[in-house]
This record gives sequence, C-alpha cells and structure tokens, in this order.
Amino acid sequence: MTTIRIYVTYKPSVFDPQGAAITDSVNSLGHQEVKNIVVGKFFDIKLDEDDQDKAKQDVKEIAEALLVNFNMETYRLKVLEEN
Amino acid sequence: MTTIRIYVTYKPSVFDPQGAAITDSVNSLGHQEVKNIVVGKFFDIKLDEDDQDKAKQDVKEIAEALLVNFNMETYRLKVLEEN
Repeated sequence: MTTIRIYVTYKPSVFDPQGAAITDSVNSLGHQEVKNIVVGKFFDIKLDEDDQDKAKQDVKEIAEALLVNFNMETYRLKVLEEN
Repeated sequence: MTTIRIYVTYKPSVFDPQGAAITDSVNSLGHQEVKNIVVGKFFDIKLDEDDQDKAKQDVKEIAEALLVNFNMETYRLKVLEEN
C-alpha cells in the first residue's frame, strides 16, 4: 500500500475569495497580527500499489482527470507512507 | 513573520461523503488500485509574530473560534517557516 497526498490550491494569479473573507473575519476578531490566510484542499489517496513511481503516476492521472481544475488551480504531490 | 498551516479533517468516527464519492468516481474511471480517499482542508496563516510559541497559540485560538467545527472535525498545526 502507498498513500499519496495531493495538495490543491488556487494559482497565485487567481484571487482566493474564501481566504480573503477568513482573513477579514480573523482581523475583526481582534487578531490584527494575521496578515494573510490561504485556503487549500488535500486528498489522501491510498493505493494498493507498492511501486512508488507507479503510484505517483496513477495519482497524477487521477488529479488531472478529476481533482484539479487547471483553469484556476495547481497541485503538488507528497508520498505519505509505503508499507 | 511566521506561517502556520492548519490541517482540518473529519474525525475518524464521522463519515466523509465527499471522500467516498470521489473514491467511487476514481474506481469507475478504471483506477481499481485506489482503496480509499480522504478529503481535508488546509489554511496557511501568515502572522506578523516572530515568537513561534505565541504564533501557535494565536493560531490555536483562531482555529477554535472560526475554522474548525469540533462536532465533526479535528485539526493539526504545522509551522511552515519563520523569517
């Protein structure tokens, strides 16, 4: 088994409305020390595949077919564990 | 400046409907090797605070006041950088 995490965030050029709204709320709560909040999603994908390179290739295909909107988003992969 | 990431996931006892739906979709696409997908959110919080312990305490307060629904969710903190 291999578990791979996909991190999905907005591209830097795309405005993150949720992050901006949360930053405002946090500042209103009295936390003026907070300068910026960026929001993202992650997916922990557990595969029945022991070859890490093959697992990464599978996850890349899944991200590109289903999980990432390439117009607005970008993603990164991280292998979490293999056993 | 310190940047701290908050990872928010459903508690293990709470059913993750989005994760289950995505796992089904991925299996339907032909990726039968995928056994489970867990979905989560993360928040990268940039604070004007150089004391890491103070920054962590601030972020803990923010998570508990605003970002985490303790009925269903749990969270973890990770310091990303300090400079």
